[in-house]
Amino acid sequence: MMETSSWIRRMFEAGAALRAEHGADRVCDFSLGNPDVEPPAAFQSALREVVESCIPLKHGYMPNAGYPETRERVAALVSREQGISIDGSHVVMSCGASGGLNSALKAILDPGDEVVATIPCFMEYASYVDNHGGALVLAPSRADFDLDVAALESRIGPRTAAVLINSPNNPTGRIYPRRTLGQLADMLERAGRRTGRTIYLLADEPYRKLAYDEIEVPGIMGLYPHSVVVTSYSKDLSLPGERIGHVAVSPQADDARRLVDGIILATRILGYVNAPALMQRTVAKIQGLSVDVEIYRTKRDLFCSALRSMGYQLTTPQGAFYIFPRAPGGDDLAFVRTLQEELVLVVPGRGFSLPGFFRIAYCVDTAIIERSLEGFRKAAARLGA
Amino acid sequence: MMETSSWIRRMFEAGAALRAEHGADRVCDFSLGNPDVEPPAAFQSALREVVESCIPLKHGYMPNAGYPETRERVAALVSREQGISIDGSHVVMSCGASGGLNSALKAILDPGDEVVATIPCFMEYASYVDNHGGALVLAPSRADFDLDVAALESRIGPRTAAVLINSPNNPTGRIYPRRTLGQLADMLERAGRRTGRTIYLLADEPYRKLAYDEIEVPGIMGLYPHSVVVTSYSKDLSLPGERIGHVAVSPQADDARRLVDGIILATRILGYVNAPALMQRTVAKIQGLSVDVEIYRTKRDLFCSALRSMGYQLTTPQGAFYIFPRAPGGDDLAFVRTLQEELVLVVPGRGFSLPGFFRIAYCVDTAIIERSLEGFRKAAARLGA
Repeated sequence: MMETSSWIRRMFEAGAALRAEHGADRVCDFSLGNPDVEPPAAFQSALREVVESCIPLKHGYMPNAGYPETRERVAALVSREQGISIDGSHVVMSCGASGGLNSALKAILDPGDEVVATIPCFMEYASYVDNHGGALVLAPSRADFDLDVAALESRIGPRTAAVLINSPNNPTGRIYPRRTLGQLADMLERAGRRTGRTIYLLADEPYRKLAYDEIEVPGIMGLYPHSVVVTSYSKDLSLPGERIGHVAVSPQADDARRLVDGIILATRILGYVNAPALMQRTVAKIQGLSVDVEIYRTKRDLFCSALRSMGYQLTTPQGAFYIFPRAPGGDDLAFVRTLQEELVLVVPGRGFSLPGFFRIAYCVDTAIIERSLEGFRKAAARLGA
Repeated sequence: MMETSSWIRRMFEAGAALRAEHGADRVCDFSLGNPDVEPPAAFQSALREVVESCIPLKHGYMPNAGYPETRERVAALVSREQGISIDGSHVVMSCGASGGLNSALKAILDPGDEVVATIPCFMEYASYVDNHGGALVLAPSRADFDLDVAALESRIGPRTAAVLINSPNNPTGRIYPRRTLGQLADMLERAGRRTGRTIYLLADEPYRKLAYDEIEVPGIMGLYPHSVVVTSYSKDLSLPGERIGHVAVSPQADDARRLVDGIILATRILGYVNAPALMQRTVAKIQGLSVDVEIYRTKRDLFCSALRSMGYQLTTPQGAFYIFPRAPGGDDLAFVRTLQEELVLVVPGRGFSLPGFFRIAYCVDTAIIERSLEGFRKAAARLGA
């Protein structure tokens, strides 16, 4: 596992080496989804307020699921986003989305179970599923990166415990439209009847608030009963290092109460114990807030139009802060290496189980984007865009 | 697993129910190791300073192992405590000790491996080992709760990957003396030669700074090469809800570099990703600091002498904030229920794999201890201390 470790982190580390050699100013690093946009001012005020109110003693244990008040406030927002009414008892605060996904998978999976996801996808999913004795099974997506519901259905068998989707998507920026999600819900009902077990739909939604051009990010809970939504505050509030997120279970899911209790137990025994106390109190005060998405939209538009003018083939991302173009020449590894010679770092598509593409994380300063364009131009020219 | 869930958390929840019924003032809850002592003033200053210096942008990802500066400062303290010199590259910042233990176990264990620990012990260990495909094997300790090295040796076989110790101990308050740890080290060398594999010694040390009467807490790294020390800032800085701790690997351990890399990878793929950023920056500034242990020593002395005067049999704890007396009448569950009728909550010894005892967590206000004494007296009288 250490040898096949994440391409994303590997490129991030290659970046550190390049910066040491050539100077930080000369390297353009698009490898990691580490937002450069400042958290909103309201976050900083809320954090200050929480720190000052932490005397007396507010850093102690609370129920493993989190502070009841935080859970209630999260439930109110989840209800608005998902189109059904849930209360705090269906929310578990987590150590980011990755902590929440692990807790949910621990609660859902029996050894040998399978989780179906789409290609391309964030490959840490495979580790998260493997952590709990399961196996990730991948299905292709459509050419425009929308879900291919028939392909997903073909991967579902008696061992399938869950389908895992991610919209807005990392790495493609695709937002799955309501129509596709409706087809997915129908298919899951049908497949569940066929296999004789409930198939949970897990939605990883850390980029929900980073959607452009007023495109709707439909909530899955209104569409499919056996739904679990996981998210974090890492991307939309620029807090990835603080490890705060949450899991919400649809009250309409089979065994919803037992599933929530399982997620709470998993939160404890997986060693998270609870989401960090200070951040739980802080995010409770600013539910629904996010950074200004126009900042990212502007970067997206600049980058996409520049790349297109050089001959790059890409689908315009609708959300998140990634672009996933075809690699000029077709070999993503060769392209990434060529680009690295120009001191520009991106992640090869094989890091998302889709060779032949590459991922740009454009959550960086616009000046870096502008500085990188010459490198993109040269690499495309060398490999034939 | 949900049905046999932690007795500690179960009693904590019983306490919440009793408080709702009888009023919080009337319930004396000694079930949870949730410190009531305020974090030191220097912690609050450091936290304020960190929050103010977090602009611009200091909540982002950092290397999964943590901030290099934090790791260096931790390494300096670990070197002093453990009696060998280590640097920051051997430290991984973790989400509390439970996160650190899970990362270390994930890195060390292959499926079917065993970890040997002593009775009584914190039973979440069994879950942490099980999470990674291992099994916890228990050996008795001596009557005075010191390690029984011969008993540990008898539990070691070809599947043994590690021995896990905890000193100062939860639930007994025992500190293992240097002589016993030396015997343990000799035994592990011998047993490792016998089984043909390195047996790692994992020391869970969240109570290291909570030692009374100037009793030494010996460092294991100076005694045994294949050592891993895990700790948290939860108990000694009263920060259990903030989820901050660290893992340190002895540079003398077999495959030390690979083990550290494995722990870093485990930190990532188990979904912790990194220890919370704000707390990493804060604890870096106050390495070595703890609450005033005299506060706990005073409570210990008051409680132990009162219980003894009522006929309770107990070994005076040398550290941590727990007392582990024999249950009057011999049946810990019957005793705990009787005590609960007096609105006093403790955890039965079976929650630590040692029926016939019970655990008091005395990290509460002295007034609560004083208020509880009549209940302890009545329960002992009813069951025959």
